[in-house]
Amino acid sequence: MPSALVFLAEGAEEMETVISVDVLRRAGIDVTLAGLGGDGPVLCSRNVRLVPDKNLKQALSAAPYDVLVLPGGGGGSKKLSESEEVRKALLEQENRGGLIAAVCAAPTALLAHGIAKGKKVTSHPSVADKLSGDYSYSEDRVVVDGKLITSRGPGTCFEFALAIVTELMGKEKAESLVDPMLVKL
Amino acid sequence: MPSALVFLAEGAEEMETVISVDVLRRAGIDVTLAGLGGDGPVLCSRNVRLVPDKNLKQALSAAPYDVLVLPGGGGGSKKLSESEEVRKALLEQENRGGLIAAVCAAPTALLAHGIAKGKKVTSHPSVADKLSGDYSYSEDRVVVDGKLITSRGPGTCFEFALAIVTELMGKEKAESLVDPMLVKL
Ligand SMILES: [Cu+]
Repeated sequence: MPSALVFLAEGAEEMETVISVDVLRRAGIDVTLAGLGGDGPVLCSRNVRLVPDKNLKQALSAAPYDVLVLPGGGGGSKKLSESEEVRKALLEQENRGGLIAAVCAAPTALLAHGIAKGKKVTSHPSVADKLSGDYSYSEDRVVVDGKLITSRGPGTCFEFALAIVTELMGKEKAESLVDPMLVKL
Repeated sequence: MPSALVFLAEGAEEMETVISVDVLRRAGIDVTLAGLGGDGPVLCSRNVRLVPDKNLKQALSAAPYDVLVLPGGGGGSKKLSESEEVRKALLEQENRGGLIAAVCAAPTALLAHGIAKGKKVTSHPSVADKLSGDYSYSEDRVVVDGKLITSRGPGTCFEFALAIVTELMGKEKAESLVDPMLVKL
């Protein structure tokens, strides 16, 4: 069973976080929602509180994961950008050729940590300017470039999560999830 | 500021719950996520744990709300169907001509409590047969019939939440949320 670590930082976009976790679990991926601030509930961008499965330190002790997922949200992405533990996890994942996936404002955390520079990426339109210098910027709803998957916002998250499923489990598995969720592609 | 109560029962579909809460809050609606089982974290259908804002009893002491929202999920919908507090809240909301919104399997809870019989509804395709006798069944992604809004699943939830925003705050407000969320309609 492929494995995924989804980072959960204060100020994360709760829709992006939950859609990623839920869709990956529907696919049969073993998902760990990892709290940057410890074991307690995390206050997200629109005041929804999510309880992490493990704190990040605990979660990283079980690395490597087949994919590291960075949900967006302005506050959450800032926390991801500032975290030394996140930096270390991303660098290790990049060095081992593992998959990294970031949505909305979270590609700015890749920039902050010097990950995958020069690759083709997308992001929330509001942070496009920050990324266009160091990356090849695209306005596609989901961009897959080698081992990097990026996407644009809450409304692209089903497609984002399905792209992760496609990479880890194949196109047929991803397609099998579309109708039961009533996703319009 | 319009107000919304979103029911949170064990086994609720976490995407449907969080998309509803988040989009309504983006619109400026005062949303209370109300836990049927008390104040503690609620285990949702794909093992995400959400912390309610209040327990249901507390939340209902502040009734009426401009809309009552019922997220789906098989387990969650069963709990909503069995709850005497939910029944009472729905009947009061119907009697005062207030808005009720249900998505995915949750329209079966409306059936269980005898709410809005004969109205035009939709639901997750897997429970269509249960509803088609007592309601006028539609396969549209979102159905608005008077004070009842129904929808089909996680992938229709942005449209579902935007329909609630349209009813409470107008079409212009709802449309203003589409681009920042990157929703494809
Ligand atoms: Cu975002």
